[in-house]
Amino acid sequence: MHATLIHGDHDIRFEEVPDPVLVTGDDAIVRVVAACVCGSDLWPYRGVTKARGRIGHEFVGIVEQVGAAVAQVKVGDFVIAPFYVCDFTCINCRNGFSTSCLQGSWWGGDDRTGHPADGGQGEFIRVPLADGTLAVVPGPVDDALIPHLLTLSDVMGTGHHAAVSAGVRQGDTVVVVGDGAVGLCGVLAASRLGAGRIVAMSRNPSRQALAREFGATDIVEERGDDGIRVIQQLFDGVGADRVLECVGTEESMRQALGSARPGGQVGFVGVPNGGPELPMRKLFGSNVGVRGGVAPVRNYIAELLPEVLDGRLRPGAVFDLELPLAQVADAYAAMDERRAIKVLLRP
Amino acid sequence: MHATLIHGDHDIRFEEVPDPVLVTGDDAIVRVVAACVCGSDLWPYRGVTKARGRIGHEFVGIVEQVGAAVAQVKVGDFVIAPFYVCDFTCINCRNGFSTSCLQGSWWGGDDRTGHPADGGQGEFIRVPLADGTLAVVPGPVDDALIPHLLTLSDVMGTGHHAAVSAGVRQGDTVVVVGDGAVGLCGVLAASRLGAGRIVAMSRNPSRQALAREFGATDIVEERGDDGIRVIQQLFDGVGADRVLECVGTEESMRQALGSARPGGQVGFVGVPNGGPELPMRKLFGSNVGVRGGVAPVRNYIAELLPEVLDGRLRPGAVFDLELPLAQVADAYAAMDERRAIKVLLRP
Repeated sequence: MHATLIHGDHDIRFEEVPDPVLVTGDDAIVRVVAACVCGSDLWPYRGVTKARGRIGHEFVGIVEQVGAAVAQVKVGDFVIAPFYVCDFTCINCRNGFSTSCLQGSWWGGDDRTGHPADGGQGEFIRVPLADGTLAVVPGPVDDALIPHLLTLSDVMGTGHHAAVSAGVRQGDTVVVVGDGAVGLCGVLAASRLGAGRIVAMSRNPSRQALAREFGATDIVEERGDDGIRVIQQLFDGVGADRVLECVGTEESMRQALGSARPGGQVGFVGVPNGGPELPMRKLFGSNVGVRGGVAPVRNYIAELLPEVLDGRLRPGAVFDLELPLAQVADAYAAMDERRAIKVLLRP
Repeated sequence: MHATLIHGDHDIRFEEVPDPVLVTGDDAIVRVVAACVCGSDLWPYRGVTKARGRIGHEFVGIVEQVGAAVAQVKVGDFVIAPFYVCDFTCINCRNGFSTSCLQGSWWGGDDRTGHPADGGQGEFIRVPLADGTLAVVPGPVDDALIPHLLTLSDVMGTGHHAAVSAGVRQGDTVVVVGDGAVGLCGVLAASRLGAGRIVAMSRNPSRQALAREFGATDIVEERGDDGIRVIQQLFDGVGADRVLECVGTEESMRQALGSARPGGQVGFVGVPNGGPELPMRKLFGSNVGVRGGVAPVRNYIAELLPEVLDGRLRPGAVFDLELPLAQVADAYAAMDERRAIKVLLRP
């Protein structure tokens, strides 16, 4: 079979690799139906972080084989894989934070038993802890639903986590920093949670349009101190109730903290990259809370999947380009050059 | 009249000063019935920060005069003054964060009109924005209630803020870092909010005893990495749901962050002093939230006062020494040397 490997900066190849086999008893083999490229995949691609070997961590597919200890997932099931492996039974999983699973691991790394796990951008994938990791989608799955289902593996769950971490409630005013796929899903999540007014910070016309489709009521193009001033003016001179930080740079966190009113809260899901540092004295003086991190999307599937299935929630619109999986290198280039928001890949 | 002034490190004097007079129309003159010394007063006393002149910011008393524009507070009212001045009508006050009042100021500093405000450890005090700042206690006030009422000016409201900021709810597991008066009130606040188990971190037998009286179920004497290990062992190997950080040093914040389980939350009210820095990568990986700051105690009086009046809430036990106001210098020394948890002063 074939899978995606990263060999160096801007060097993505779709190569022949051994077929995966069951090894732990609790694992499953999934035939990928759709995968995609994540903004965080661009970091090794750009050489910001070092990663070599199998890559990708978002996919949906059909279960082809299951190990002897797998009890819930069955051959033929259509499944969503979150961007990490988890048992979904440990104390952290039960507390709602399966990204801190005591038996957890990451696609492309070794699983808890020391066996290497596949990356998510391949034709077949061995899934450790299949009963915990995989969420089964009931019934026959309409092909048109696949992009929406695929977002539950990461990007929609992560946008939702930003909104939940910021504490978005009915009627709140919300600012979303970042117009990538996660930021746009953050807009959708805030809207779904009943936010009264949602500002998308974006300078890109097509992303502004999608933000409005997802529920943004206002667009702010200014950044830095100008951006903070405009946001404060929009909201009583003091800022918004909730801010979703969906980038992960020092500059974006500064924008987020400056956009929150006293007593407001920043929900952050952008992987902190060379920062950001938090100005503790300012947090103390303003009572702005900061909460977030790596999103427990496996836990959120139960809440979000029914709305995707009945058509109320349509986050799949973040995919504005679809390519064959074999052209995965083109997908990375399109996202790196911001020609695409997010690329869907089909084997 | 007489009031307390700080002239330098360890130099507290009770001196004759001019009687306060009404100047802004919205102010009031209050005759102090009881005042006290705050842990944060020890910082200039120890020379950690520089402050000279009038000092003190916690008092209760009787209204003696009111300005022409004062509509709600009346001569003869028994009032609680929070540790700051606020109008209690601006957007930040209405949002629950009167410490960020757009017209606010601090005892011992200048008010919004540029007139100097008195410190809280004096015989009489001019209170700017009297209708907003002062909370009226429905009369008559039993003398035995005065210590409890006085805690609503700062220390009980601040402990409550730590618990609220940490998100304490029914059944939660809670760790309190800091066994000063605020930490002890944090124990009481967590208990009042229904915490299922409360660990007080303390090595001092009398403070341990008061913590238990306030609702602590466990005492942990270890600190640093040992303290974190003991806390994790107590709570499923992962840590507590909520942690109250009531000190403000880098070491105490490190203790707090290490004591919270993945997805838990730290509520912090210790004034950050030469730190603490937040390890963003660790917060991101563990989803531990951080929220808190200068406590909006004026907003909390409405919730806490009825329980003080009917005897359900008895935070006044944090006062383990009472002195005449004229002996204020002895009060500072007793707290500095940790001979007293908190000293009540009566003119």
